[in-house]
Amino acid sequence: MKKLKYKDPILLSSTDGVGTKLCVAINYNKLDYLGFDLVAMCVNDILASGGEPLFFLDYISSSRIEKKSFLKLVKSINKACQVSNCSLVGGETAEMPGLYKKNDFDIAGFSVGVVERENLLKKENVKKGNLIIGLESNGVHSNGFSMIRKILDLNKISLDENLPFNSKKKVGDELIKPTKIYVDCILPLIQKRMIKSIAHITGGGIYENLARALPRKLTAMINLKNFKIPKIFLWLQELGSVENKEMLKTFNCGIGLILIISENHQKDVISHLKKNRSKFWVMGKTVENKKDSQIIIENYGKWVLK
Amino acid sequence: MKKLKYKDPILLSSTDGVGTKLCVAINYNKLDYLGFDLVAMCVNDILASGGEPLFFLDYISSSRIEKKSFLKLVKSINKACQVSNCSLVGGETAEMPGLYKKNDFDIAGFSVGVVERENLLKKENVKKGNLIIGLESNGVHSNGFSMIRKILDLNKISLDENLPFNSKKKVGDELIKPTKIYVDCILPLIQKRMIKSIAHITGGGIYENLARALPRKLTAMINLKNFKIPKIFLWLQELGSVENKEMLKTFNCGIGLILIISENHQKDVISHLKKNRSKFWVMGKTVENKKDSQIIIENYGKWVLK
Repeated sequence: MKKLKYKDPILLSSTDGVGTKLCVAINYNKLDYLGFDLVAMCVNDILASGGEPLFFLDYISSSRIEKKSFLKLVKSINKACQVSNCSLVGGETAEMPGLYKKNDFDIAGFSVGVVERENLLKKENVKKGNLIIGLESNGVHSNGFSMIRKILDLNKISLDENLPFNSKKKVGDELIKPTKIYVDCILPLIQKRMIKSIAHITGGGIYENLARALPRKLTAMINLKNFKIPKIFLWLQELGSVENKEMLKTFNCGIGLILIISENHQKDVISHLKKNRSKFWVMGKTVENKKDSQIIIENYGKWVLK
Repeated sequence: MKKLKYKDPILLSSTDGVGTKLCVAINYNKLDYLGFDLVAMCVNDILASGGEPLFFLDYISSSRIEKKSFLKLVKSINKACQVSNCSLVGGETAEMPGLYKKNDFDIAGFSVGVVERENLLKKENVKKGNLIIGLESNGVHSNGFSMIRKILDLNKISLDENLPFNSKKKVGDELIKPTKIYVDCILPLIQKRMIKSIAHITGGGIYENLARALPRKLTAMINLKNFKIPKIFLWLQELGSVENKEMLKTFNCGIGLILIISENHQKDVISHLKKNRSKFWVMGKTVENKKDSQIIIENYGKWVLK
């Protein structure tokens, strides 16, 4: 059990599932990373409020728990908790015959964290001229899978096919890559009070999550020239004829977490990220709210899969 | 947000679902009490460690959220949180087409509570000669439903039939009655340090849950003459030809929560329970461990539905 030293602690909590990424992992019969997705969805949310994750609980529900799958799942949850430096303190395993088909199951995660009141991240901290720094995601993470499944279905693409832009890798392997956990790298920056606001890029993509991390009176001016959209997103976009804005409203497009910082801290933050081998981009900056739009994207034109 | 005053607080957490009671409520098309079941399963567990529930989160997963059902569910969760004096601070609603059939869904609950370190209930607190007090349950609560569904199936009994022992009530209405929440009534007794150990009677029935609330060196001597087993259990037993011991290992048999107290506190505890209109029975007492059995039941003979 962690012994905590906080002057005026606030408890934070988060619950989430992994959405229909679950169905892709079940169909592809590879459950090795689902624990990372589940834990990441919860602990990155706690981090986005400035909090240190303390403990995690899982809920696993199925028709009949199949031992081998179950062990894989629990092992990956356990490992992801270690990576997040939080304790796996409990869980519930429910057998619900009738509700789930043979090999199907559902999972939910729950995490509690703590933050010193004065370190609580709030969008009101953000000022004009702050920098917007995007941290690299590890593929699609755990969002946008309803659209992904639809695109694959319509194009009759199976999870076992090779990717057209990487013939050594299967579609399934790319899609089930584990969601990145940012706790370890970013928590020290929060505790040094170098971060003003954080957006965890989940459902709603860069567009909606970044907007939620800003006060109404400010706009994020993002230049797409400033970062590289990974091929998996460009491929999905091409296959599904998805508009640019829709892409940014659905997927993380290569950015898993966004930090908003003061220009004064730019040097320190960047040197910390480099030291931690965390790939990042300075995506843009905050300006006064223009045209009542919280996000303005520059240089949309470039989205082509080469 | 609650402001807490604890000298040396320990955080407690609990996660649970409602098992296959969910399927019964869905089939019976009455979701009005499921929130009570979900919250009760979590907060009664926290209470059993001596804790005060602080907050609750829910996870609701379905094929496509049907608004009317969803509202009923959330309303009942909200009300149950109020009854438990804990805050409903968040939740996740997942749409997982493909995983769930049309009207099916699954729910999980998470709760966090806090206890003053010196008030943490431990089975080691229990001594020889302590009293075992059972608090009335509100029907079958949220456990034993796999057996219940099997018994109903085998006997071709539908949820819409009237109960043979109560012609004004349908089988479905009896089964979906909400799990009782004991927080409000019992927490003051814990804070006055009048309770030594608590067993929340869930999966495993009186038998297994009471055993877990005792140190190995003690045995609970329970006299079945001392409390009344409600007719619903006797009816299920008769229909399913279930043995007495199996009944006590599966169902709460009329007892939702068991308190273990010192004889010195008997008068105060009983007067508190009476003042709170909480129905209870002095079920028995603790004795030295005999025959290596943690639970000894006296007067099995009486189990007959009249």
